Amino acid sequence: MLNWAVYCRHEMVGEVTEIGSKVTKFKVGDKVGVGCLVGSCRQCDQCTNDLENYCSNLIWTYGSVYTDGTLAHGGYSNFIVVDEHFVVRWPENLPIEIGSPLLCAGITTYSPLRYFGLDKPGMNIGVVGLGGLGHVAVKFAKAFGTKVTVISTSINKKKEAIEKLGADSFLVSRDPEEMKAGAGTLDGIIDTVAATHPLLPLISLLKPHGKLVLVGAPDKPLELPVFPLISSRKIIAGSGIGGMKETQEMLDFAAKHNILPDVEIIPIDYVNTAMDRLAKSDVKYRFVIDIAKSLKAE
Amino acid sequence: MLNWAVYCRHEMVGEVTEIGSKVTKFKVGDKVGVGCLVGSCRQCDQCTNDLENYCSNLIWTYGSVYTDGTLAHGGYSNFIVVDEHFVVRWPENLPIEIGSPLLCAGITTYSPLRYFGLDKPGMNIGVVGLGGLGHVAVKFAKAFGTKVTVISTSINKKKEAIEKLGADSFLVSRDPEEMKAGAGTLDGIIDTVAATHPLLPLISLLKPHGKLVLVGAPDKPLELPVFPLISSRKIIAGSGIGGMKETQEMLDFAAKHNILPDVEIIPIDYVNTAMDRLAKSDVKYRFVIDIAKSLKAE
Repeated sequence: MLNWAVYCRHEMVGEVTEIGSKVTKFKVGDKVGVGCLVGSCRQCDQCTNDLENYCSNLIWTYGSVYTDGTLAHGGYSNFIVVDEHFVVRWPENLPIEIGSPLLCAGITTYSPLRYFGLDKPGMNIGVVGLGGLGHVAVKFAKAFGTKVTVISTSINKKKEAIEKLGADSFLVSRDPEEMKAGAGTLDGIIDTVAATHPLLPLISLLKPHGKLVLVGAPDKPLELPVFPLISSRKIIAGSGIGGMKETQEMLDFAAKHNILPDVEIIPIDYVNTAMDRLAKSDVKYRFVIDIAKSLKAE
Repeated sequence: MLNWAVYCRHEMVGEVTEIGSKVTKFKVGDKVGVGCLVGSCRQCDQCTNDLENYCSNLIWTYGSVYTDGTLAHGGYSNFIVVDEHFVVRWPENLPIEIGSPLLCAGITTYSPLRYFGLDKPGMNIGVVGLGGLGHVAVKFAKAFGTKVTVISTSINKKKEAIEKLGADSFLVSRDPEEMKAGAGTLDGIIDTVAATHPLLPLISLLKPHGKLVLVGAPDKPLELPVFPLISSRKIIAGSGIGGMKETQEMLDFAAKHNILPDVEIIPIDYVNTAMDRLAKSDVKYRFVIDIAKSLKAE
């Protein structure tokens, strides 16, 4: 078990301050991360295939009841005790305070790009929605050598998408002419939008056999037109975070390719203001709470 | 080009009666089949990858305007002229009058079982709907060595599914208890239902990473619940018939494994009665019109 300094709700990075007698993977002083998971059954088909995130008995870092009966509070604390299996090694050259959202937004977009084979150089990949997940999806897709098209309801994000994030092109999803021109051009799409939205325009952007992967979960069912799937053998899939092995792989890849989320680092006493700004989508793209500095400042 | 005797709308089998000077694949007297397609561009990515069925310029055997400007009438005629590329060789041991529906129902179910990797011995495969497509899907899935569960709204089909078609189990989709007991058990499902129907109960039957393949096209969009896809990385896909190369492969596989659709052979003057019976789902499972015998009888 590990004690350590942390940041954020379920994307925490910090230093090991104490280890249990059976810990072999880490030592005091190691830089480590904990993502969305702190437990799983370790025995089912998912767990034994490094897919703990799909275990039906997984324990979320935030909000789940832990094996000892207490509620898991995630990163809103100055230390956390975690089974070493659910701790990842933090790469040396990845800044702790900036990189933490990779543990959710990073793995959520990296994993489907890999699993669905959307990581081949030269492929055309779409990213729907340019928020916390979307902007990281663009960075990973570019690092894989694909050509990236950002699809957004707002033309206002075009400059940012292309000039800052390095996307190759941009489509305004509310512009029927632009969408028509983009029809049949994409090998795959990572759709990060959690609000109800039409799927048909996105399905139409895919080449035959293309894949639309949903990583944002709208509350209500979406409308699924079936004929466009049948006529071009297209796929709609879902994907949720990733297993521990792949999370480590994602971090190492991010470190190698200098992939970092864009964040705004805040002290703990700024959280109420941050919540108000989040409600207005006024953040590029994630707030990160610096717990250690917040405590020192007290 | 070929002239020949035929059966059915777009699933015809007959004998070559005449060939054009450039025909190399067939000779007069050969037993051959023509399925849903009689033309495609032959140049696009789909065509050059033996996926003519996904060519955006495909010509349907029934109802399309052919390259000469005339309307394609399919199998409702005593002969048809077809480019040899869109003709398949009919296996010697496959009865002509019974096997013809393989050219639509057969390839429509064989192709997704193969493409989506649902053809591995020991897998658990679901087939939704026990009609023209569904009963052939059961036969192919069994021949691949999978365990087959038929899912139907009606308990009345259970005996037929298990005793006659060889399915391993049967679930009544309107029985919540049965469906609950089957949750998380299937690697993949071939859904042949063309009417509007709920997807969530079918998604729930899949194991994590399972695949629900739709081959029936409801007119209206279906309701797609997104969270169940994300939480277990499940896939919903569409699939439509198959290319010429795969259609030949399917026929050869059917011949090798003695797979034949269950049909009722009728003369041409029975078609109006057949249409009335079709409207009442009163056929197991396809009508086949014997054009040659109908003509001889006149």
